Amino acid sequence: MSGSLSIVGIGPGSIELVSPMAKTAIEGADLVLGYKPYLDMVASLLTTQETKASGMTREVDRARLAVEQAQTGKKVAVISSGDAGIYAMGSIVYEVLSDKGWRGNQDFPVTMVPGITAANSCASLVGTPLGHDSCTISLSDLLTPWALIEKRIEAAAMADFAITFYNPRSKRRVDQIEIAQRILLEHRSADTPVAIIDNAYRPEQRIELSTLAEFTQCEFAMTAAVIVGNSQSYRFGELIITPRGYDNKYHLDSGQVKDGQRRGRTLQTEEK
Amino acid sequence: MSGSLSIVGIGPGSIELVSPMAKTAIEGADLVLGYKPYLDMVASLLTTQETKASGMTREVDRARLAVEQAQTGKKVAVISSGDAGIYAMGSIVYEVLSDKGWRGNQDFPVTMVPGITAANSCASLVGTPLGHDSCTISLSDLLTPWALIEKRIEAAAMADFAITFYNPRSKRRVDQIEIAQRILLEHRSADTPVAIIDNAYRPEQRIELSTLAEFTQCEFAMTAAVIVGNSQSYRFGELIITPRGYDNKYHLDSGQVKDGQRRGRTLQTEEK
Repeated sequence: MSGSLSIVGIGPGSIELVSPMAKTAIEGADLVLGYKPYLDMVASLLTTQETKASGMTREVDRARLAVEQAQTGKKVAVISSGDAGIYAMGSIVYEVLSDKGWRGNQDFPVTMVPGITAANSCASLVGTPLGHDSCTISLSDLLTPWALIEKRIEAAAMADFAITFYNPRSKRRVDQIEIAQRILLEHRSADTPVAIIDNAYRPEQRIELSTLAEFTQCEFAMTAAVIVGNSQSYRFGELIITPRGYDNKYHLDSGQVKDGQRRGRTLQTEEK
Repeated sequence: MSGSLSIVGIGPGSIELVSPMAKTAIEGADLVLGYKPYLDMVASLLTTQETKASGMTREVDRARLAVEQAQTGKKVAVISSGDAGIYAMGSIVYEVLSDKGWRGNQDFPVTMVPGITAANSCASLVGTPLGHDSCTISLSDLLTPWALIEKRIEAAAMADFAITFYNPRSKRRVDQIEIAQRILLEHRSADTPVAIIDNAYRPEQRIELSTLAEFTQCEFAMTAAVIVGNSQSYRFGELIITPRGYDNKYHLDSGQVKDGQRRGRTLQTEEK
């Protein structure tokens, strides 16, 4: 009885963005569980391991099977795209562990292997739209009341967070992103840059740049992330740059004081 | 003249979390630029490349040198810990490129290699505290007015975002995290779980779990991230779990409807 359970983030989909730690967990597993397209993304790491693909809606079943198999002594890896702790399998696996009375590593070790979440992988394809404070908001109301989602959009708009929307649209659900747009337009300029990134780092990758006033006219669905810049974000060719600070508190020529205030004295990350 | 510039996120600090894409960019570079401790983290990838370490406060100089060297035909890699687009070198490099009249890939190619940002790497060490909507807020007021930072804390508190605070404290700056605590306590329960993660995935790694009422009594400084759960987050042993949804909209036993509403019907990630 020396089972273990790894909850592994494989990043956006390219094997080039799967970390060595994730590879080790997958290659060393007896059993690898995941949504079928995610197993396909790491196909080159799957040799003698048993695999079990399951549909996107079978996450509780997958988590339960993972825990049960680890309990019987198997080394189990559960994979998620992006980071397994962000809108992903991580929380469900821990909830099942709790439900089944797992008492920590004395029973069997459970580890999370972090991955590159969609906000970061998508942002990297269009410059640095998340260069300053930002938030992620899922527009899926399956498990979250819409009133709370709307409140979050309002809060993010008001406080000038750059925003990454996950699950921006589905076949059934098309109005939410337009409500989000209306709320944002009350607080942010119509020409605020917006990027839509679909299937980042996968062969089907598609990128579209737009503005807050117009982006809802673009085509996109569940697999896309929609990134909205903050009040300081600007277009630079086919990129969106969100500066590290506000109000020209620094300038590039000399790194010197611009306005004599402490805040402006240099472009440094941080005091120590 | 076939220079290039890669802006590379190396993740939290362990070579085991540096992606193959990041490795390729670093190994293939003529010149690797970065803050000294970050160069040390990828020392095993540095063989014949020229390297140039610079201090944390010399970021504009570093970006300018990177761009100038790429202009002369060198393959240059600029490295950041975490993700280079999140409070990091990415925005500064693009600002310098803009300043120097870079016209896009016709001049020389510039690419971002995404990395695992601190929010995700730190969260993975304490469960899934960021399992639902979350935001990152830097408490450094060097380049951002404090009034705006405070507004963001207020907005995040009000809208029940899980929060990762970057740069939570410095030698000079100790009050901000206590102001943040006071604001959060107006909206969230005193026993809301909080994690302090310092030097994630580095030999000096240190983790402390606390509560919203008490965490400011813990020792931490600039290198730590402070993660505050949302209203649904709970402690599970030495972990913090933030569920995927609200109000028991799903349950684990059957994946069936709990309350007859559409929202509760299964624990699925998303409709298609």
